[in-house]
Amino acid sequence: MKYYFVGSAVFDKILPNPVCSHVMEGAALAKKERCDFIIGLGGGSSIDSAKSIAIMAANPGDYWDYIGGGSGGGKPVLNKPLPVVAITTTAGTGTEADPWTVISKDDANEKIGFGLIPGTMPVLSIVDPELMTSVPPKLTAYQGFDALFHSTEGYFSNQANAMSDIFALKSISLVFKSLAKAVRSGSDLEARADIAMANTLSGMVESTSGVTSEHSMEHALSAFHPDLPHGAGLIMICEAYHAYFASKVPERFENMARAAGVNVDALPAEKRSHAFVDALVALQKECGVYGICMSEYGIQKSDIPFLAKNARETMGGLYHADPCALSDEDVQAIYEKSYR
Amino acid sequence: MKYYFVGSAVFDKILPNPVCSHVMEGAALAKKERCDFIIGLGGGSSIDSAKSIAIMAANPGDYWDYIGGGSGGGKPVLNKPLPVVAITTTAGTGTEADPWTVISKDDANEKIGFGLIPGTMPVLSIVDPELMTSVPPKLTAYQGFDALFHSTEGYFSNQANAMSDIFALKSISLVFKSLAKAVRSGSDLEARADIAMANTLSGMVESTSGVTSEHSMEHALSAFHPDLPHGAGLIMICEAYHAYFASKVPERFENMARAAGVNVDALPAEKRSHAFVDALVALQKECGVYGICMSEYGIQKSDIPFLAKNARETMGGLYHADPCALSDEDVQAIYEKSYR
Repeated sequence: MKYYFVGSAVFDKILPNPVCSHVMEGAALAKKERCDFIIGLGGGSSIDSAKSIAIMAANPGDYWDYIGGGSGGGKPVLNKPLPVVAITTTAGTGTEADPWTVISKDDANEKIGFGLIPGTMPVLSIVDPELMTSVPPKLTAYQGFDALFHSTEGYFSNQANAMSDIFALKSISLVFKSLAKAVRSGSDLEARADIAMANTLSGMVESTSGVTSEHSMEHALSAFHPDLPHGAGLIMICEAYHAYFASKVPERFENMARAAGVNVDALPAEKRSHAFVDALVALQKECGVYGICMSEYGIQKSDIPFLAKNARETMGGLYHADPCALSDEDVQAIYEKSYR
Repeated sequence: MKYYFVGSAVFDKILPNPVCSHVMEGAALAKKERCDFIIGLGGGSSIDSAKSIAIMAANPGDYWDYIGGGSGGGKPVLNKPLPVVAITTTAGTGTEADPWTVISKDDANEKIGFGLIPGTMPVLSIVDPELMTSVPPKLTAYQGFDALFHSTEGYFSNQANAMSDIFALKSISLVFKSLAKAVRSGSDLEARADIAMANTLSGMVESTSGVTSEHSMEHALSAFHPDLPHGAGLIMICEAYHAYFASKVPERFENMARAAGVNVDALPAEKRSHAFVDALVALQKECGVYGICMSEYGIQKSDIPFLAKNARETMGGLYHADPCALSDEDVQAIYEKSYR
C-alpha cells in the first residue's frame, strides 16, 4: 500500500454574483499555498470563480487585464490555467461542461463572460444529484429553466449543429419530463438526476452551439435589478421570445415540441410550430413560476426602449446567433408582451 | 500576412489488417523526419496505425513490448504519444472518436486492441462524407452494420450509462434512417452524412460504454478466416445474438426498436422486445446482406465448439460486459442458429 499526503486550502468568499477582487484573492491564496489544481464546489458562481482563479494563479497582473469587453485590457492569457475540477450543487448554469466563466468587475456594473482560451474547461466534473436535494423549489425552477433555455436557444441558434442538436433535444426532453417533479419534491432523486443530466447536457450545448439574444435581453433586466435571479428574468420573457422565433424556424420548434413530449404530428399543421410555446407555458404553470411580474422587481414599462438598447450594446454578439435578425423594435415588442 | 512552412512525410504501407512491423517502420520515419504529429487518413486501419505510430514515435523499444494481452510485454507507456489527427474515409469503426487501436503481430495470429492510455484519442477528427462516396455498396453495408453493432452492444451492455445511451440511440436511429440509401446510392451525400455521423457517434459509444461478446464471437470467425470482413461476420451472427438478449433486457430492446423507427407501443406487449430483431433483419434485407453464409467462407458446422472456446479464450473480457451471463452452450447455440 502506498500513501499520499494531500493538502488543501479553502477559499469561501465567493458571492452569488462573483467579483474580480475575490478572483484575485483566491488566486493569491492558490499561489501562496502552491496549489496544483482548483476545485469549484457549489453553484455556477463557485465553479466560474474556480475557473478564473485557475487563470490568475498561473498568470501575472489583474484578471480584468485579460477581459475582452467593457473596460477589460484584452491581453492574451500566456500561461495555461491550473486544472479545474467542478463539483456542482445546482442544476442551471451547465458551467461544469463548458469553458465559460462570468465574473463582475467590483463596483463597476460590468459582468463579462470569458473562456475562449485553452484550460478553462474542467478536467473533471462531478455531477451528483444528491448534492442538489436541498435546493429550494423556486431556485430549482429558476435554475432548471436557465438550463432549458441554454438548450432551446442553442437548438434554434444559427450556430446549431448535429452534435449540439443531440445534446439539446435530450436536455429539453429531460427538463420536460422531470423539472416539475424536482420542484415539487426536492428529494426525488430520479427527478434530480434527470435535471442534473439535463443541465450538464445544456453545458455541452453551450460548448458546441451557444445561447442567443434572449440571454442579452435578460441580462439587461438583471444588470439593473440585481435582486432579479437570472432564471426568473428568462422566465419573464421566454414566452414572447420563443413565440417570435417559432414561426421563423418552425421545423426546429416542432422538434423541440416532440422532445417536450408533445404529439406534434397529431396537431393541425398550423398549430405545430406554436406547440412548443404552449408546452413551455404549461411547464411554467406546473413549476409554479408562470406570470412572474417585472413590476415586482422595479422594472418600469417606460424603461423598455432603454432596456432594448442596453441589451444590444452590452451583449450584442448574441444577436448574430439568432436564426433571423431581431430589430430593436422586435426586442421592444417582446419586452412589452412580457411586461406584467 | 504571416506565412508558415509546413513539411510532411508520407507513410503508405498500411495493410487492411495493420501489422506491428509497419507501426515500427512508420514510427521510425516519424522520428527521422521529426514529425510533430501524425495524421491517419483512410479507414480504421490507417487511423489505428496512426495511433500506434504516435505511441512508438515517442517511446523506446518495440510496440509489442507495451501490449497487454497475448505475447505482449505489458510495459507501461511512459511518454505521451504524438498528437493524432484522424481523417476518416469510411464509416464503420468509429476509431476517429475513440482511443482504441487494433494491430496484429506479424505472422503470429495475435490481433490485439490497445489504447487505455492518455493520448491515443485523436486531438482532431475530420469526418467528411464526401470522402466516403466511393466506398462500394457491400463494404458500405458491412461497415455500417459494424457501426450499428458498436451502438447496439454499447446500449445493452452492462457498461451503458446516460451519456453512452444518448450517443447509441441517435446512432441507431441514423443507421436505420439512411444505411439502405447509402448502400443503394453511394453518392447520396445526405445519407452518407447520416452514416458518417452514426459512425462517429458509435465511436463515442465505444469511448463511454463498449462492445459485448458479439465482437468476441465474430473475432473467432474472422481470425481463422481472414477473407471474412469483420462487418460481414457480425451480420452473420447478429440475428441470433440480438434475439438471445432481447428477452433478457426487453426495455433496452424496445428503446432500440423505437430508435429504429418502429411504433413499438402499437405492438402487442409480447412482441415488443423482439421488434428490434425484426427491424434488424429487415434492414439487412434492404441492404442486400441478409443470409451471408458461413459455409461460403469455409466455416464448418463442426468448428462451432472450437469457435465458442476460442471466442472466450481470446476476447473473454467482453463477456463481462454482457447484460447477463452467456454460457459456452449459449454461444454454441447462437453460432448454430446463425449457421448457413
